[in-house]
Amino acid sequence: MGYYIGCDVGGTNIRAAIVNSDSGDSFDLTVQPTNAHEGHEMVLARMAALFEELIANSNLRRDQIQGIGIGIPGKVDVKNGITNFITNLPGHWINVPVAGTIQRLMGIPTYILNDVRSITWGELKFGAGRNCSSMVLYAIGTGIGGGIVINNKLLLGNSGQAGEVGHMTIVPDGILCNCGNRGCLEQYASGPAIRSAAIKAVAHGATTILGEMVDFDLNRITPHTVYEAAISGDRIAKDIYYQAGRYLGIAIGNSIVHIEPERVVIGGGVAEAGELLFAPVREELKRIATLAPIENIELVPAELGNNAGVIGVSMWAKHNVMAE
Amino acid sequence: MGYYIGCDVGGTNIRAAIVNSDSGDSFDLTVQPTNAHEGHEMVLARMAALFEELIANSNLRRDQIQGIGIGIPGKVDVKNGITNFITNLPGHWINVPVAGTIQRLMGIPTYILNDVRSITWGELKFGAGRNCSSMVLYAIGTGIGGGIVINNKLLLGNSGQAGEVGHMTIVPDGILCNCGNRGCLEQYASGPAIRSAAIKAVAHGATTILGEMVDFDLNRITPHTVYEAAISGDRIAKDIYYQAGRYLGIAIGNSIVHIEPERVVIGGGVAEAGELLFAPVREELKRIATLAPIENIELVPAELGNNAGVIGVSMWAKHNVMAE
Repeated sequence: MGYYIGCDVGGTNIRAAIVNSDSGDSFDLTVQPTNAHEGHEMVLARMAALFEELIANSNLRRDQIQGIGIGIPGKVDVKNGITNFITNLPGHWINVPVAGTIQRLMGIPTYILNDVRSITWGELKFGAGRNCSSMVLYAIGTGIGGGIVINNKLLLGNSGQAGEVGHMTIVPDGILCNCGNRGCLEQYASGPAIRSAAIKAVAHGATTILGEMVDFDLNRITPHTVYEAAISGDRIAKDIYYQAGRYLGIAIGNSIVHIEPERVVIGGGVAEAGELLFAPVREELKRIATLAPIENIELVPAELGNNAGVIGVSMWAKHNVMAE
Repeated sequence: MGYYIGCDVGGTNIRAAIVNSDSGDSFDLTVQPTNAHEGHEMVLARMAALFEELIANSNLRRDQIQGIGIGIPGKVDVKNGITNFITNLPGHWINVPVAGTIQRLMGIPTYILNDVRSITWGELKFGAGRNCSSMVLYAIGTGIGGGIVINNKLLLGNSGQAGEVGHMTIVPDGILCNCGNRGCLEQYASGPAIRSAAIKAVAHGATTILGEMVDFDLNRITPHTVYEAAISGDRIAKDIYYQAGRYLGIAIGNSIVHIEPERVVIGGGVAEAGELLFAPVREELKRIATLAPIENIELVPAELGNNAGVIGVSMWAKHNVMAE
């Protein structure tokens, strides 16, 4: 039996739990606000306190916790356990030795990993990626992140950035992305992209119930509003998901011509739209059918939901502890 | 010392040589017409005769040849040594047991591999990919093929189609490709794409020397004509390479967000245009600089030229012989 702590640092919340690495079961999952503006020292100290609390509240001895994994939203130096560049966290998170600091405070081997690569590893071990050796994961939410597994190994790339599928260019000279590039997938299929397409449609006077649904307070439109409109039959809302799905399909096709994985896993809040998004993806993928036998590539929704990161990064800690 | 036969089957010619697998030196390189229309049985029989001739003309004993590798232009079942789908070869090349047939005729272990994956393996072992463990190769000629190496391993994918970067969609609803998809890179940066852009420019009355260069017999325009016009200062010709390079840069950027390799190798006839093509690629790659430290990713021309396939697939045979 091996127990590991998994911790997922998000822009809003920190989620942490002890994970049984044999079953993938997590227990005592605790959520607390990140409050990143307090600065990384304070946040790291609070994280260590949270981990101590998790251990104290469990019926495990401290020495039964074999490692700690921390999922970070941004670019991280996996080897040295240092953050390079963090998205959406105020408080100077560049070049912070997260792994070293937590390891010193806790006395337990600690590893860090990008948050979506953590989700990927979690889905591989205990979710939608079980029993497959190569997969590409798309996590579609506020941004679009990704992760790639080849021969049961997480692909990290030169500097940990392999799998950043959300920043694939799918429209030359397209919409400007926060990353500085133009035409990134993230600008066409993320939650904000869906929201923005909906606001535009209402503002342009399209025939849709979207405006009424938010009493014409357009800022209140969310991807979920669009989803609800779509399943109630609103054509504009359906079309917004259809367009997002088409771009997502183009991107997934591009992933397939690179990797030709056994499985493509789609997760994140936006993916909860299910067939509204999956149907146009499948349709788009038919276009590359002469090239790769796409009927052999499974397109499946993620399974672990909000816990994927916590579970995944705890398993990443195990992977590293075992390798040492 | 290990000697292997490498053979590259092309639409026009079959090239074969004995390769010293320690040095990568090939000798007695022989080229003969493919004449694919004679049918695969005839072609395979001629190939075996050619291999016998290579051995007889060498000062090697037959038992010193440890394996045979055959590079095939199309989709192949690497594991079973069978062709799935061959591009540009008349004569029923579907489901042909190429490896088994040659192995039976020759009595030497035989392996097959896609032609551009063969080039990739050759460049990795003895060319532009030396001393690197992860690379993406683009071979830009009549078509655009590719190959991916991760952790010193050739990425094959589910059915051998991983690395088909020429069929990445870079323009949604773009030009129809032979593969059935729309907007494939191959339609924007291959030799025929460059040629077709040049013919269009002349036909539209653009101010260019391209027409005169072929006495206005526009069918005679080749990518090399455009290259010569460009280096002599023709703005239209330069722009044609610039546009091709931009699309190539978008595609390479997409490969980088997937793989983040140490090196990107560009080969094939079109790549001989050098800076005309490389400069816009580099410019385009700057756009993803915040995402991946592209200054750490080397962009280099292929080194092995026409022999890359022969050398590569002979080394692929070695790789398989050694693994068994």
